[in-house]
Amino acid sequence: MAELVGNLLVAQSGGPTAVINASVAGVIQEAGKHECIEEIYGGLNGILGILNEELIDLNDEKAKTVEGLKYTPAAALGTCRYKIDFKKKPERAAQDMNRLFEVFQAHNIRYFFYVGGNDSQDTAHKIHEEAVKRDWEMRVMGVPKTIDNDLPHTDHCPGFGSVAKYNATTVMEIADDVSSMATDDGACCIVEVMGRGAGWIAASSILARRLPDDAPHLILMPEIPYNEEAFLARVKETVDKLKYCVVVVGEGLKNPDGTEFSADTHRMDAFGHPVLAGAADRLAEIVTGKLNTKTRTVKLGYAQRCAAHYASATDALEAAACGETAVRAAVNEEKSGYMVKIVRLQNNPYRWTTGLQPLGDIANVENLIPRDWLSEDGFTPNEKFIEYCRPLIEGEVHVPTEGGLPKYVVLEKYPLQKKLPLRE
Amino acid sequence: MAELVGNLLVAQSGGPTAVINASVAGVIQEAGKHECIEEIYGGLNGILGILNEELIDLNDEKAKTVEGLKYTPAAALGTCRYKIDFKKKPERAAQDMNRLFEVFQAHNIRYFFYVGGNDSQDTAHKIHEEAVKRDWEMRVMGVPKTIDNDLPHTDHCPGFGSVAKYNATTVMEIADDVSSMATDDGACCIVEVMGRGAGWIAASSILARRLPDDAPHLILMPEIPYNEEAFLARVKETVDKLKYCVVVVGEGLKNPDGTEFSADTHRMDAFGHPVLAGAADRLAEIVTGKLNTKTRTVKLGYAQRCAAHYASATDALEAAACGETAVRAAVNEEKSGYMVKIVRLQNNPYRWTTGLQPLGDIANVENLIPRDWLSEDGFTPNEKFIEYCRPLIEGEVHVPTEGGLPKYVVLEKYPLQKKLPLRE
Repeated sequence: MAELVGNLLVAQSGGPTAVINASVAGVIQEAGKHECIEEIYGGLNGILGILNEELIDLNDEKAKTVEGLKYTPAAALGTCRYKIDFKKKPERAAQDMNRLFEVFQAHNIRYFFYVGGNDSQDTAHKIHEEAVKRDWEMRVMGVPKTIDNDLPHTDHCPGFGSVAKYNATTVMEIADDVSSMATDDGACCIVEVMGRGAGWIAASSILARRLPDDAPHLILMPEIPYNEEAFLARVKETVDKLKYCVVVVGEGLKNPDGTEFSADTHRMDAFGHPVLAGAADRLAEIVTGKLNTKTRTVKLGYAQRCAAHYASATDALEAAACGETAVRAAVNEEKSGYMVKIVRLQNNPYRWTTGLQPLGDIANVENLIPRDWLSEDGFTPNEKFIEYCRPLIEGEVHVPTEGGLPKYVVLEKYPLQKKLPLRE
Repeated sequence: MAELVGNLLVAQSGGPTAVINASVAGVIQEAGKHECIEEIYGGLNGILGILNEELIDLNDEKAKTVEGLKYTPAAALGTCRYKIDFKKKPERAAQDMNRLFEVFQAHNIRYFFYVGGNDSQDTAHKIHEEAVKRDWEMRVMGVPKTIDNDLPHTDHCPGFGSVAKYNATTVMEIADDVSSMATDDGACCIVEVMGRGAGWIAASSILARRLPDDAPHLILMPEIPYNEEAFLARVKETVDKLKYCVVVVGEGLKNPDGTEFSADTHRMDAFGHPVLAGAADRLAEIVTGKLNTKTRTVKLGYAQRCAAHYASATDALEAAACGETAVRAAVNEEKSGYMVKIVRLQNNPYRWTTGLQPLGDIANVENLIPRDWLSEDGFTPNEKFIEYCRPLIEGEVHVPTEGGLPKYVVLEKYPLQKKLPLRE
């Protein structure tokens, strides 16, 4: 195979993370080292922007800005949740695919990198297959990203370490606060964290526990069906002993019948919609109502996935390395149709490298916490989980400040001239 | 007046902050310099622990631990919300007061420092007056503390700068996240922050705005009655223009009739209690229902007031200085019955000093945001507010880490031998 000369396109997709931009920085900086890559373009808002031919010239950005992406949260290129769905909307999907390749060809895109989670890797896979079918020589690589840590085959996902670090820190601080107010009346605080299908984020808050009585005192994860009796017994036991209790709950907690715990179909809001109270608020009602214990809730929501002011240095480094590896694999090894993965070499001290996994192995597989990484009652991740998780939160990213607040970078986003008619 | 020789007692009261321990460190370190202060004791859980004669010997703590209090959140001595209420419970209050002075006399307490907010300053005031009445020579000083920033006479309150810094950072990060996902459908995120009576905390999130279109796009404060029409119009206008909108709401937002916005008496929970949905969740229902805009909520709750991992260095320094000043005023100037206050000398560059205010001037006065520090529509703090608030978030506190998480200190809490019979 001859050296593939042409342009590179990188885009981001799905929910942002604190380090998804570090992966883009890795792609840009590594791409700059290879002469066969002529121009480095970014697609705005993922596939959606590419369909609209909204491309920007990343080579025109300042080197300092690109370096600053390594500590800047959220998706600097913009992101989307758009899906090319051949099953549900075959006609639209076929149109979209044609349009994508018109854009690729109009701008001589020969390297395409898609940074995202499960759905995005599926999109990358389809584009790779189409490129082969259409005989358009283009190297397509997926770069992993998700706070949910639910991608298979990779040891863990860039983005997870930072949310784990921020949430564990927050739980530790909240526990200090609640315990310092704890008097004989007892108090409970319930912290709701993200994670619809997998409990990795909720479970990782266990890192806040340094001594046996430390918070979090119990963790409710989507993998373990809600058991009200056991839950209340544990809260009561903890409050009786310590005068306070900190609970962490993953938003996707399930009832024993598999339905969402937070969806309360018995209540309607003012507009007649069922109330989505949130798992923490529902648990608070139950603790207050059944144990008569004063309970407050915290819902970290988006705050947890973009908290770059306290991101994990390990995570940021790995995220950038995933971007670099994608470029090297495409250029040096002439690979296409793979996702970069993180391979753990050893613990204590933690060592890792990157590897490649065929994109076809990734789509629609959700990686849950192994059952034997949790205590028998399902309320506490055990040593196996902790050994796995601990290295991922190590190190602090240095974020410059201005006026006491983080100074994140913003891309100039120099637009590329459009060459195609508007999308239908 | 002769030099007053005896022991010192310091205690903390009310909701904790990120820097309330810095004030205690200031008291301890300054007290150590004065020979007339023989022993330095801490009262556990404020007045409540003192009533129970739960005192600890702070002179036995390691110097390094005391220094570490300057970056350790929550109340290291424990806190309480206990009130000595002569109006509602005169008999209990009289008993309590007698008991307090039994404890003071048993342990030869000649210096008493109470770190807290409005109610705590009131308690300190009563104790001061009682000491005079009982002819027990003791110097009583209040040290200000409250994230709410609602104490009168002081330019601002220790604790406020840190919550302002953390919340503004969080709003900035959330805005990056939401804007990077914003597509034509539009999206709204509503961030609920603390503040029941005063809107200082909500208003301070304005510091996240560096450019005119930056978040927060509107702020709802308890001082400005909720106006649904104006609120929805502003959200719609913002989403139409930017495709996203970030709203900050203080938990104590009021309806035009003065009732709490978040208390929904039309809905009951499973136990028959009215649902306290939280201001953000109620607003989200309204935005979703009336504008059909996808809306997510974040409720920072306790997380915001204990976020020492991103505390304001200015705030921590001022908090420690307030503790030091209290000791110097009591020892050198023989003062009693005063609260330490922060006096602003100038802006640009910001300069401040400490002063004293009679405790009688503090109790039951709530300092709200001046109306002319807000825009006409009440949705945005103006330049006057920003000039006031900006210096308070300057500088970062260095917090040591261990395993990727903050390493806060914990007092050994060496208990003092009790000398009195148990409290009745």
